[in-house]
Amino acid sequence: MTTTTVSHILKASTHQTIGALKGILIKAEAYARQLNVEDSVLLTHRLYPDMFDLTRQVQIACDTVARGAARLAGLEMPAFPDTEQTFGELMARCDKVIAYVNGVDNAKIDASANVTLQIPMGANTMPMEGKAYLSGFILTNLHFHAAIAYALLRSQGLNIGKRDYLVPVE
Amino acid sequence: MTTTTVSHILKASTHQTIGALKGILIKAEAYARQLNVEDSVLLTHRLYPDMFDLTRQVQIACDTVARGAARLAGLEMPAFPDTEQTFGELMARCDKVIAYVNGVDNAKIDASANVTLQIPMGANTMPMEGKAYLSGFILTNLHFHAAIAYALLRSQGLNIGKRDYLVPVE
Repeated sequence: MTTTTVSHILKASTHQTIGALKGILIKAEAYARQLNVEDSVLLTHRLYPDMFDLTRQVQIACDTVARGAARLAGLEMPAFPDTEQTFGELMARCDKVIAYVNGVDNAKIDASANVTLQIPMGANTMPMEGKAYLSGFILTNLHFHAAIAYALLRSQGLNIGKRDYLVPVE
Repeated sequence: MTTTTVSHILKASTHQTIGALKGILIKAEAYARQLNVEDSVLLTHRLYPDMFDLTRQVQIACDTVARGAARLAGLEMPAFPDTEQTFGELMARCDKVIAYVNGVDNAKIDASANVTLQIPMGANTMPMEGKAYLSGFILTNLHFHAAIAYALLRSQGLNIGKRDYLVPVE
């Protein structure tokens, strides 16, 4: 067999990257305690004034996989309110999103692999097969926002490395 | 059919993300001309002293897909010398890498999907099936370094947005 499934890649990538993001947030929380600053000092940092801050980057990384799984499986969009103000609350969101994606039926996700979906892009929609939506949109956006979150903490002096990005926390 | 192939995802992701990176480098070169600075001013920027600079981030993003394709297909590792000093040279590297990955035989790549490969990690190797190597290592590293490259230019004031990261240059 030389094939792999959309559901397998989506679930493995969610486990790996949202799990790694949670591990990075755990280290960031300890770093804030060590610096004796409020979580918000690190969480509101931006790389440039018109970029999203760290809190929003984590929220979008989480939403990307949750909404992606729902759209592929033909489910109602899950709603995770954007109310987090601490590292602990963002870690809990990572846990919730991993559990949500894991709970979506593989057969339902895979049934969309070769079906053309209408993917919302700003005010328009773009037709995209499920498997292209996975690699060209879900994974691309997941990693984009997770890597920017990493960069936001690294640029504030948090001592993390590539391994923290590649390996999910236990 | 509910499956997708490793070769398809690898080639589509390379086209999309290395192609988008090239487009971002084109805009960065114009930005350097507009600022009337040498390319090296932007290319040597780092988000933190012990992180890689922009040139190296682009080189690693390129190497990740080229070496990944070679390893999956059982080919000799391609060598791209790390000699680039200008945006133009980095754009040429993006072109070369896209051509290299496109030229690797799909059947050879897909033959490794369920085969356990020994992936070098620092001084050790890690056993990983080809499909896990694709989603857990190649795509993760590709996007990590491409997103950091984006962040390095965005944080220097280059006017780019998410669309530049998602859509390859024509």
